[in-house]
Amino acid sequence: MHEKARKGKGRVSNDKRIPVAVLGATGSVGQRFVQLLEHHPWFRVAEVVASERSVGRPYREATDWRLDAFMPTDAAALVVKDYGDPIASPVAFSALPGEVATEIEQRLAREGHAVLSNTSTHRMEPDVPLLIPEVNADHARAIEVQRAARGWSGFIATNPNCSAIHMVLTLKPLQDAFGLNSVMVTTMQAVSGAGYPGVASLDAIDNVVPFIRTEEEKMAEETQKLLGGWDGEFRPADIVVSAQCNRVSVRDGHTECVSVSLGGSPTPEDVTAAMRNFAGRPQELGLPSAPKRPVVVRDEPNRPQAILDRNTENGMASVVGRVRACPILGIKYVLLGHNTIRGAAGASILNAELFKVEGLLPV
Amino acid sequence: MHEKARKGKGRVSNDKRIPVAVLGATGSVGQRFVQLLEHHPWFRVAEVVASERSVGRPYREATDWRLDAFMPTDAAALVVKDYGDPIASPVAFSALPGEVATEIEQRLAREGHAVLSNTSTHRMEPDVPLLIPEVNADHARAIEVQRAARGWSGFIATNPNCSAIHMVLTLKPLQDAFGLNSVMVTTMQAVSGAGYPGVASLDAIDNVVPFIRTEEEKMAEETQKLLGGWDGEFRPADIVVSAQCNRVSVRDGHTECVSVSLGGSPTPEDVTAAMRNFAGRPQELGLPSAPKRPVVVRDEPNRPQAILDRNTENGMASVVGRVRACPILGIKYVLLGHNTIRGAAGASILNAELFKVEGLLPV
Amino acid sequence: MHEKARKGKGRVSNDKRIPVAVLGATGSVGQRFVQLLEHHPWFRVAEVVASERSVGRPYREATDWRLDAFMPTDAAALVVKDYGDPIASPVAFSALPGEVATEIEQRLAREGHAVLSNTSTHRMEPDVPLLIPEVNADHARAIEVQRAARGWSGFIATNPNCSAIHMVLTLKPLQDAFGLNSVMVTTMQAVSGAGYPGVASLDAIDNVVPFIRTEEEKMAEETQKLLGGWDGEFRPADIVVSAQCNRVSVRDGHTECVSVSLGGSPTPEDVTAAMRNFAGRPQELGLPSAPKRPVVVRDEPNRPQAILDRNTENGMASVVGRVRACPILGIKYVLLGHNTIRGAAGASILNAELFKVEGLLPV
Amino acid sequence: MHEKARKGKGRVSNDKRIPVAVLGATGSVGQRFVQLLEHHPWFRVAEVVASERSVGRPYREATDWRLDAFMPTDAAALVVKDYGDPIASPVAFSALPGEVATEIEQRLAREGHAVLSNTSTHRMEPDVPLLIPEVNADHARAIEVQRAARGWSGFIATNPNCSAIHMVLTLKPLQDAFGLNSVMVTTMQAVSGAGYPGVASLDAIDNVVPFIRTEEEKMAEETQKLLGGWDGEFRPADIVVSAQCNRVSVRDGHTECVSVSLGGSPTPEDVTAAMRNFAGRPQELGLPSAPKRPVVVRDEPNRPQAILDRNTENGMASVVGRVRACPILGIKYVLLGHNTIRGAAGASILNAELFKVEGLLPV
Repeated sequence: MHEKARKGKGRVSNDKRIPVAVLGATGSVGQRFVQLLEHHPWFRVAEVVASERSVGRPYREATDWRLDAFMPTDAAALVVKDYGDPIASPVAFSALPGEVATEIEQRLAREGHAVLSNTSTHRMEPDVPLLIPEVNADHARAIEVQRAARGWSGFIATNPNCSAIHMVLTLKPLQDAFGLNSVMVTTMQAVSGAGYPGVASLDAIDNVVPFIRTEEEKMAEETQKLLGGWDGEFRPADIVVSAQCNRVSVRDGHTECVSVSLGGSPTPEDVTAAMRNFAGRPQELGLPSAPKRPVVVRDEPNRPQAILDRNTENGMASVVGRVRACPILGIKYVLLGHNTIRGAAGASILNAELFKVEGLLPV
Repeated sequence: MHEKARKGKGRVSNDKRIPVAVLGATGSVGQRFVQLLEHHPWFRVAEVVASERSVGRPYREATDWRLDAFMPTDAAALVVKDYGDPIASPVAFSALPGEVATEIEQRLAREGHAVLSNTSTHRMEPDVPLLIPEVNADHARAIEVQRAARGWSGFIATNPNCSAIHMVLTLKPLQDAFGLNSVMVTTMQAVSGAGYPGVASLDAIDNVVPFIRTEEEKMAEETQKLLGGWDGEFRPADIVVSAQCNRVSVRDGHTECVSVSLGGSPTPEDVTAAMRNFAGRPQELGLPSAPKRPVVVRDEPNRPQAILDRNTENGMASVVGRVRACPILGIKYVLLGHNTIRGAAGASILNAELFKVEGLLPV
Repeated sequence: MHEKARKGKGRVSNDKRIPVAVLGATGSVGQRFVQLLEHHPWFRVAEVVASERSVGRPYREATDWRLDAFMPTDAAALVVKDYGDPIASPVAFSALPGEVATEIEQRLAREGHAVLSNTSTHRMEPDVPLLIPEVNADHARAIEVQRAARGWSGFIATNPNCSAIHMVLTLKPLQDAFGLNSVMVTTMQAVSGAGYPGVASLDAIDNVVPFIRTEEEKMAEETQKLLGGWDGEFRPADIVVSAQCNRVSVRDGHTECVSVSLGGSPTPEDVTAAMRNFAGRPQELGLPSAPKRPVVVRDEPNRPQAILDRNTENGMASVVGRVRACPILGIKYVLLGHNTIRGAAGASILNAELFKVEGLLPV
Repeated sequence: MHEKARKGKGRVSNDKRIPVAVLGATGSVGQRFVQLLEHHPWFRVAEVVASERSVGRPYREATDWRLDAFMPTDAAALVVKDYGDPIASPVAFSALPGEVATEIEQRLAREGHAVLSNTSTHRMEPDVPLLIPEVNADHARAIEVQRAARGWSGFIATNPNCSAIHMVLTLKPLQDAFGLNSVMVTTMQAVSGAGYPGVASLDAIDNVVPFIRTEEEKMAEETQKLLGGWDGEFRPADIVVSAQCNRVSVRDGHTECVSVSLGGSPTPEDVTAAMRNFAGRPQELGLPSAPKRPVVVRDEPNRPQAILDRNTENGMASVVGRVRACPILGIKYVLLGHNTIRGAAGASILNAELFKVEGLLPV
């Protein structure tokens, strides 16, 4: 697959793919962007941007590469640019730290770039789409309001928090089929979600930390925005979300125990069928990064497990198991999702693919 | 403390403490019994009983000791007895595997022994007390019905599952103060709960296993029995319990995220106060293994943590944190408890102390 | 790559690949055989053989699949055969437990099968090749003596212990270039080396176990056989090996700290160059599973690391780092190798590829 | 034990114990000082000193307490002082970060304080004792030269690196009994050795890091100083040390695989006997923190293990196992030691006890 990308290797002049910049390219999520884009059929990493410490050095040297997949050769040779440098690529993927993201992302959007951001900064703004293409592809149109209101030629679009996105992927088919009233969730989140160095090993070995700053709030408000409507402005869904978020000793893959109150008392079999039949715009459009099945439901009693299931559909699916009756809310289940692929960089890339097909990229 | 115990060391003839047998003494929970009883003021380990493989060897050699506290010298010298051998001690603590527990425990009770069992076999029987002295000390009286019905001179009393006991310790003050309608809980349980060898390291490293056989059922039914009444027969409490149980990479200490529906809409401060003021029969009686505070509530946003809090009150307390509003059920919080101390051997020992003070031991 | 294999999928009748049986197919190493052979250009898994418990069930159901790569579809449908059943495939890969391997492997060799065994049983026998194709490809000829002596139409060939093979891959270029007198090694071995369930999580979490039964002996005697000669009989190399073997909390990838006494006082640069230039028969022949570089030397001060480097060259290379002077023996370095790929199943497969090209397979 | 200390609690005016300051009190080693001194019979923590961020706040609030033992009540109430504040206590225990230690420790020594430092800064200076009371108690006299040369009324004395101290404790009896030529060692070190936050969990989970900056150099040079003589100046021992240092996924307890070349070809039994008979000045003097047995040798084939043995003798002993022949150097064995007790704070405290008994404290 990705034949065109492979052929193009090393012959940049002939490479017809859209050049993209990765902002915050040396960090955990930045590295994941670079890795996932290596053989992408539509995009190629043309610019890497990072903080002062790395500027002017080849990406190979500036980066303490922490992924088990190896660093792509083409990206390795790129010289790291400064946050303030002009960006030539029409598309920018942002893995910027929150404290610098606001200003830089806005500047780039103003200058005409499509900014696909994994940072939380702009997610909840009233004219910025928070997007999961399978769930609320129609929210993409919010960029028109955003451009008009802000006088920008480019735009900012965001993807959700790494825990929220997987939960919402599993909730959307339930909302569609039965109606969704409330969701109780307890997460067991991987340490990679906190970046590198992130969680101290003394907090991780033989321990659970029952607290992740602002995570529970994000899971509530982002879920309501994602499952809500857009009619010129966002109409948050009237769904009550109660989250408890924990950090566990896992490298990659967030596990979440969910209980839901649905309309019409569906059985576990009904719920399983709704999840298995779920597909959205990315599947219709055949987007390159789209999983064939956005939600994979397993039948084994002891799945999903991080170590066994996090790479399902190349890390782009949510994997569900143990769908069963909950005597309090009606239905409960466990889900697992890769937090740095579908939960971060992969989500931004899928968003970019949607914008491309919709003709909304500035190229 | 435990001065008498210490003086008695090595001079068995003068040791006035009640001799006890530990059944299944070489296993994880058996070892914990032996360790916790080392300096006990009322009981001394006089007999250790295990499966065929160990019989006839000194406990020191028969046991692959896995605790970080060292093996008590007195116990180390005891010769391991067979399951079928006669037991001289009036009291037997049982850490037997389920498949052999039924027959052996019943035989010993018939022969006149007080059997304090950590095994699940008899917990739900209609004439066997399932006991947490702080919670339902009055259930101890069920042994009279048991003896009459079964024609036994001894009796069997049990303590709860390691996850249920800690949750119920935190629920009891809420039930008393506000009334309790329903409980949603997600557990993150330590591997020691599965004994040794128990959980494979390939299932524990970099992983969460979202399934523990029969655990969710036990949490529901045991909670209802524990929080229910006894008036000649057990009256299970009318409380709906929905549990999701997970195994995480922690040695000791179960973490549980709880949401509760209570009567009268108490605030988090009300709930905290009720938990902090909670005390029961063991505290009134000053039982030797009783924690001063059965429920310890911490104020820090990121506590309790297994590594930092599991030994609170010598592992006999439940530690609560993050008491806050739940938009679905009303109140939510996190709890942590030591699963092999208060969750197993320590619970049986506290039960034995209650029976002793109540004059119900056959001594 | 492996185009033929891919085309053949589902059209078994046209599949020209050599059918192979996997013995012990449901265990850890057996699963790795099945996974690595999925797209093999020369071999296809035609039979899976396991213990009584699994016999008669589809491989999909009989196997608790524990790899993060997914189970190959073709293999999933195979019905598991009994150890005693006749085998139709000319080639058998053995991941049998030691206690049953001797008899079954010998029976199959007698019946004409090429048995490529990962089991330790036959490794040190005087007419059985213990083979690393880069190191001692000429030892393969020992099967002629074996057949003659035992009257077998098939044969047994073995690959080394998972720790020994990686160390020997790094020692061979040093032996060739400088002469090798003695080797001191301390290993930090992954839990997957002990199979499943294997190491208990209570032994792995927050712990190091400084003992692996018979491992130190194997590292010594296998190294001497591997680096020795064959002239009708094996001439063990006159190299002193001293090993200390430890189990650490790692899933896959053995790390080994090595000090060597070499001839002629080479510098670290000399040693690095010798390792980097190393290639053997598999590289000359272009065998399908051969790594391009059997030994990869890294320059970073803090590499190799299990999590970052174990999949180098698809897990078929040994990765070396920190080559530097040792004030006692002369040179020291760290190596890392994947213990279930090059350290087990992958090693057997490469052996089979060598035998195929040498015309020694019974096909 | 420590009766006086206990009685003194809360009645500071009657407390006859020597007041001490802990420098760097909020960090990992600082916390360990505070914890180990809680019930000390001779010293009481009177001052806690830390960096700007903590100054002026009660120790309770300024400290993110990370030990499983609970924070001592008396220390909790102390107000944190600034590095620049005057210190009233005659004795100061230093757990200062290297970059600030030089200046502060020298200032305090100049002002008349006995500075017992765990920091590496001054360890190798020609007039500063690097001390293990069992090994080189006579080096304490170097402070006289130090005072004369520097014109100080106080002094600085140091304890070794956490890996070196345990190895040297096991080497000293061998040096005394047989003579010691060379030592090869590979360490597997706990993450607590790097402080908090220290090692990132992404480097620790499912991984070994084969590099710890400057650790191998320290193990060599400190060993030579420790096992060398003092006759007005230090005479390093003529012992060749070759170390390879690794970080593994363990909270506390360094494991080390050692091979030694000794004089006179002793057997493993000889070596074991020498270690078991080993005692030094702390044992003769009955110092309060002295282990009864500085080196504990275990007979089991699979010990010592971090989780089971690190608290031997309250964490003040080195635990040895697997003493056996090494075909290269003569003898090999495994050792384990607690890296933050005997490897850090406990070592400084034992040094202080020695100085007190020798009449060398400024009190």
